[in-house]
Amino acid sequence: MALVVQKYGGTSVGTTERIRAVASKIICYRKKGHDLVIVVSAMSGETNRLIGLANEISRQPVAREYDVLVSTGEQVTIALLSMALQECGQAARSYTGGQVRILTDDVHSKARIRNIDSSAIKRDLAAGRVTVIAGFQGVDENGNVTTLGRGGSDTTAVALAAALEADECQIFTDVDGVYTTDPRVVPEARRLSRITFEEMLEMASLGSRILQSRAVEFAGKYNVPLRVLSSFEEGEGTLISYEEAGMEQPKISGIAFNRDEAKLTIAGVPDHPGVAYRILGPIANDNLEVDMIVQNVGQDDMTDFTFTVHRNNYDKARQVLRRVATDLGAREVTGDPKIVKVSIVGVGMRSHAGIASGMFESLANEGINIQMISTSEIKISVVIDEKYLELAVRALHEKFELEQE
Amino acid sequence: MALVVQKYGGTSVGTTERIRAVASKIICYRKKGHDLVIVVSAMSGETNRLIGLANEISRQPVAREYDVLVSTGEQVTIALLSMALQECGQAARSYTGGQVRILTDDVHSKARIRNIDSSAIKRDLAAGRVTVIAGFQGVDENGNVTTLGRGGSDTTAVALAAALEADECQIFTDVDGVYTTDPRVVPEARRLSRITFEEMLEMASLGSRILQSRAVEFAGKYNVPLRVLSSFEEGEGTLISYEEAGMEQPKISGIAFNRDEAKLTIAGVPDHPGVAYRILGPIANDNLEVDMIVQNVGQDDMTDFTFTVHRNNYDKARQVLRRVATDLGAREVTGDPKIVKVSIVGVGMRSHAGIASGMFESLANEGINIQMISTSEIKISVVIDEKYLELAVRALHEKFELEQE
Repeated sequence: MALVVQKYGGTSVGTTERIRAVASKIICYRKKGHDLVIVVSAMSGETNRLIGLANEISRQPVAREYDVLVSTGEQVTIALLSMALQECGQAARSYTGGQVRILTDDVHSKARIRNIDSSAIKRDLAAGRVTVIAGFQGVDENGNVTTLGRGGSDTTAVALAAALEADECQIFTDVDGVYTTDPRVVPEARRLSRITFEEMLEMASLGSRILQSRAVEFAGKYNVPLRVLSSFEEGEGTLISYEEAGMEQPKISGIAFNRDEAKLTIAGVPDHPGVAYRILGPIANDNLEVDMIVQNVGQDDMTDFTFTVHRNNYDKARQVLRRVATDLGAREVTGDPKIVKVSIVGVGMRSHAGIASGMFESLANEGINIQMISTSEIKISVVIDEKYLELAVRALHEKFELEQE
Repeated sequence: MALVVQKYGGTSVGTTERIRAVASKIICYRKKGHDLVIVVSAMSGETNRLIGLANEISRQPVAREYDVLVSTGEQVTIALLSMALQECGQAARSYTGGQVRILTDDVHSKARIRNIDSSAIKRDLAAGRVTVIAGFQGVDENGNVTTLGRGGSDTTAVALAAALEADECQIFTDVDGVYTTDPRVVPEARRLSRITFEEMLEMASLGSRILQSRAVEFAGKYNVPLRVLSSFEEGEGTLISYEEAGMEQPKISGIAFNRDEAKLTIAGVPDHPGVAYRILGPIANDNLEVDMIVQNVGQDDMTDFTFTVHRNNYDKARQVLRRVATDLGAREVTGDPKIVKVSIVGVGMRSHAGIASGMFESLANEGINIQMISTSEIKISVVIDEKYLELAVRALHEKFELEQE
């Protein structure tokens, strides 16, 4: 008998038929003797419908009211799922974020969870009830509705699992686990039975959109075993946990890629202390998030500075950078929105040399030019021309033998 | 400078375009220097959409979850209207029933308001903000979401007006006031500039579905002047208040009618004490609401007993009555679902004789047979064959000269 937090995403509860199917699934788990806390998202399409309404009223809806609006999406799902459970004879009770109460800071649409009052949930569990909690939402100290931002339901589930000291947090989604890479690109891609928090974090932030990074981070911080499973198929999914001592780690666990970035270069910048700040400060002031940053070694007291931003922000960042270039007396600003980032991820890298050279060799063999390189302890990312994406991912998948267990 | 509570119904906020129009209207009032508290319903169609979802899950959805579900309808509207106000530069803040907090009993879907905490609203008003409150909803002592039942937004508005000691409670709807009768039946029907609470109560409960009876009752109890106005046209509407001393009252204010009733008779019942209870007890036990009740004077220790129920309950009530007839040894059970109730209403009746005979004479002149009669201090209702409805209402409207001021 375990205490399990399960989260069902928007596709899993996209219709009343699917909600009934989720209820049956929950009742099955319940019959195995588990205590269950269920976190749900809005029915797929609902959040977009609500945002559409807001945009008909205002191009920049007031943040406080935006949260009041979109939080209704999850509220509809908790009510319907609780009804479905009770229709099948399973005692259940729904809670909005405010009712739980999930206390957050007051940053609307990007709130962070501060504290969870788990007393009502514990009472329900003791009474044999399944509790159904609205993901993605909370309240601030003054009782204003807040939301955690898109994908925040994962974070709600993990935070609840941490607060309740649950045995496992299961994220049900439309894929049956975490793969070595996107199977649409590499048909031989293999589902991983296990992956570490750190690796998952790299995979998530690098573009494998199965789990929200913050949820993985949170799970790692509170050591909540996290499992990604399919809502529609049976299976063990992928368990995300800490590296176990003595566990033989593969060198590379997976290959992530991201098509959403664009590259900008400011060339011929005087190579002085503080120049990086003078370039990136104005970018940050415009709320443009920067991902990879590379500064080449200077020549003749001049240097080149390259970074990537989200492709949607490319034009805006370019304008800012042109102003900066004039201020600094830089030679020129160039850019390219048609790039992709490809990364190999694996905790095994720590103890194995030659991974990076293996990656570069493999890309060179395919004639793929590397435009930028960035590394961390457990990942190596390269930026390449977007037309080579599939070729690169397939070559690396084969090179590191990821199709094999 | 007055404090006014305004309520906008579902049609008035049925699209984002209309919500923007309501926002403009509110800003106009605000510019005249009034403090404004706005109560809104769900966008028209939304409550039915939500109920449709619930019914896909369960034929009898759990009451607690049903309220969690349908209360999202108003929550969407408060957010959108607050956005629209702020988009036009008017400071505003939205509140759900739970946020206000509107405390109710725990009877889900038919909750009654117990108390309203007006402190947050007062702070907002003092700061120049328009407050936008979700109608129809509240919370019980344990923080569970409750709803007041259909049309409950009127009640919310009146209760807020009472709690805030507002100068007036304005109900914006799709008609421009209370008419002497339904203009679709009598084209000469005239908008009343004033009507008393008691008359309105009779008009409302008799089938003029402009205002919910409970809201009128509440307004009368706390002496909140209530005004019915159109959302779409300019005008003074109809003010509902107490009869003013010395005010010349017309004999009859209006004619109400109700097509939703059905008639049942149990004939040849032993005329003993307690027989009415033995007939109506089982009906009440099945939650069937009874409206008019008439018992004829008995003959040979036998009597006939007739009453009306909602037409939807006709078959069910008939079955119950057949069982009762067997138990009591009654002669027969007859019924007719094709009847209507027509009523004349007016506080002037109190001081004027001959109103009833005038009504009966008028109907007799048209050859309309009266099947049942029921009277109160300020109204006379008759049940007639439904095919005579329009004829009867027109004849009475002319008879009592209601087209004239």
